[in-house]
Amino acid sequence: MKTEILATGDEILTGAVIDSNSAYIAQKMEEAGLEVVRHGCAGDNIEAVAAILKEISARADLAIITGGLGPTSDDITAEAAAKSAGVELVFERKAMSCIENFLKTQKREVIASNKKQAMVPEGAECLFNAVGTAPGFVLKIGVCLFFFIPGVPSEMRWMLANGVLPWINKLQKEKNFSLVKTISTFGLAEAAVDKRLVGLTEEFPGIRLGLRAKFPVIYVKLYVRDKDENRANILLEKASKSVSNKIGKFAFSTDGESMETVAGSLLRRKKATIAIAESCTGGLISHLLTDVPGSSDYFLFSGVTYSNKAKSKVLGVSEATLKKYGAVHEETAKEMADGARRVAGATYGISTTGIAGPGGGTREKPVGTVCIGIAAPDFVEGYRFNFQFNERSRNKKIFAITALDLLRQKLKHAGEISEIY
Amino acid sequence: MKTEILATGDEILTGAVIDSNSAYIAQKMEEAGLEVVRHGCAGDNIEAVAAILKEISARADLAIITGGLGPTSDDITAEAAAKSAGVELVFERKAMSCIENFLKTQKREVIASNKKQAMVPEGAECLFNAVGTAPGFVLKIGVCLFFFIPGVPSEMRWMLANGVLPWINKLQKEKNFSLVKTISTFGLAEAAVDKRLVGLTEEFPGIRLGLRAKFPVIYVKLYVRDKDENRANILLEKASKSVSNKIGKFAFSTDGESMETVAGSLLRRKKATIAIAESCTGGLISHLLTDVPGSSDYFLFSGVTYSNKAKSKVLGVSEATLKKYGAVHEETAKEMADGARRVAGATYGISTTGIAGPGGGTREKPVGTVCIGIAAPDFVEGYRFNFQFNERSRNKKIFAITALDLLRQKLKHAGEISEIY
Repeated sequence: MKTEILATGDEILTGAVIDSNSAYIAQKMEEAGLEVVRHGCAGDNIEAVAAILKEISARADLAIITGGLGPTSDDITAEAAAKSAGVELVFERKAMSCIENFLKTQKREVIASNKKQAMVPEGAECLFNAVGTAPGFVLKIGVCLFFFIPGVPSEMRWMLANGVLPWINKLQKEKNFSLVKTISTFGLAEAAVDKRLVGLTEEFPGIRLGLRAKFPVIYVKLYVRDKDENRANILLEKASKSVSNKIGKFAFSTDGESMETVAGSLLRRKKATIAIAESCTGGLISHLLTDVPGSSDYFLFSGVTYSNKAKSKVLGVSEATLKKYGAVHEETAKEMADGARRVAGATYGISTTGIAGPGGGTREKPVGTVCIGIAAPDFVEGYRFNFQFNERSRNKKIFAITALDLLRQKLKHAGEISEIY
Repeated sequence: MKTEILATGDEILTGAVIDSNSAYIAQKMEEAGLEVVRHGCAGDNIEAVAAILKEISARADLAIITGGLGPTSDDITAEAAAKSAGVELVFERKAMSCIENFLKTQKREVIASNKKQAMVPEGAECLFNAVGTAPGFVLKIGVCLFFFIPGVPSEMRWMLANGVLPWINKLQKEKNFSLVKTISTFGLAEAAVDKRLVGLTEEFPGIRLGLRAKFPVIYVKLYVRDKDENRANILLEKASKSVSNKIGKFAFSTDGESMETVAGSLLRRKKATIAIAESCTGGLISHLLTDVPGSSDYFLFSGVTYSNKAKSKVLGVSEATLKKYGAVHEETAKEMADGARRVAGATYGISTTGIAGPGGGTREKPVGTVCIGIAAPDFVEGYRFNFQFNERSRNKKIFAITALDLLRQKLKHAGEISEIY
């Protein structure tokens, strides 16, 4: 089914807000086996939105429209849909109940403008919203089935999962099951991942392959559609195992998890704790680790020590080491990692010290150099890497993920280290 | 001039990559005084892209198309443009020189596939690219002037600034100057900012107003277009002053800067240094501050102390205080801030201790509670806030920005504190 996605809203049209909804929806549609052929965006303008809906209605089988379902005067999507379908807006009792129920859970009163949200195009079917006031609706215009859902990302995601996707699955039920599996990889460039997977789709007919980069992690996505769900699952498992083998130790999750989630899960499973000493990553490792709910079970402490004084005083790095090797050195990194570990009484310590740029590089230690230390009850090791990204925020990211990856490999393999940097 | 933006590429169409280019371009076009009426996105498919270009050519005055100018076989934009314009692709000597020059600076050889990048639609004018191999081009199709530029964000930004915008300015030169000014605000909800600015556009005819939210900061944008640049500047300055007065202390920059940039600049200007003690923000404050190039001039240390043990051992928080008040309390926050300051030998110390959720909330201290400490040579103060966002990542963000805002206000006003929380 040819599918289009349309985001509405002046804040997106003017570029004030980056439209991340459409990418999210496109992924979900792709996973559901639909063919996304276009995205679009229009402002809060009845004529403009109605015109685009009309175009889509003649072209696509299915469309997801986000935004413009709120209570204020610039929320015009329902009116534009009615105009495009050539029908009137009507008061929908079911939509009003949905709004009343939600406001009740929030201990809020129904106000006049909420009633506007219960006005939907004649013939539309209401989509329930448990997480906000804006109900969605489904309406056939021309040859195309339109799903109108809120633009607030949390409401959009909820309604997509609970309203739109079940509907689409029902439409497709007689046809095919669509399954997807994601393998997270780190340490190989996208082209290198691609090269390792040459021949995969020939080896496993029925599997579709996609690479998705979210710097510095590359996600390998496997899609399968089959009338027989069991057969689809078996094929997906086989292909996923083959990908894991081909990618080797650079694959760190077969569930599409992030590096910080995987490292955290390993720490929890081993009942181990972690302390961090950060210099050039400036708190990013801690920020990533503590974004995972429940991370307080294993995350004890991070010392972000930019100054040498803080390195000595807080982490106990010896002044002799700093004098002899400088701040950016494996030996310093080792003392930082071990210091953080000891200070916090943690099982493991990891550290970063390097040059994120744009300034501070030298001939010997150019921007992109990072030394990473890792300390455990039975060893302390130091590593040095040189990355060529030449951008402060990218350097911080790849330094942080590299440190977490070293920790992950230690926790998992005890010994092997990525060779690709 | 009615303007459209089109992003091409399977990675955007499938949602693997979020299209941030279009938002960036839309902002620049808006600043240049153009009226952006639509964005779109299509995959790496000649027929699909050619069809959309054809539609745009009948509808818009100007269009910016990104992506698909690379050397590989799925880079099809030039071919689609030629098809849409009804012309052939021709070898463009000027484009080839541009590619050769760039590769020379990279000490790379010209390979066969680069020659493909010098093939442009007949009648197109080449746009120079100093930061990548893909030259852009300008082509009139139908009533619309199309700018084709690369999709790699750094190349897109460079060519927009150095190729597209000068061209547009020249087109508009006889008409109007377009200026924009951004005031960054924090501490008022979007609706409250909106309310304070009621009447502004009546008071300053010729000024257009826009609010842009990037949680938790709200940006107020003022646009003006005038034949007389000097007059436009004077009007903008007056309107900007009026906005600053109306927003009061909640306005923290009249140059659209981020909170961490402003706090950092104040520290630098006062030759002061900063140390941080983070609990619930988990390293985010340090991460934000150290994302600013040159932050090592004033940022000395952050201790991310999740465990009470780390709070005591690293920051010197007294066990009696932790026992009497608990980890989330103003008194604990004060000792954390002062401890970080003393440990690092910094001028100022700030701290956060709170409950980001989803777990850990109690009746007295629900999720969204944060205590913030601020320590200076002559005072130590503690504050408590309750936020209602109920989402871990949002809580971390607003806790961090609130702490930086307190620091900023101390550095700037010495005394006044935001009352709006």
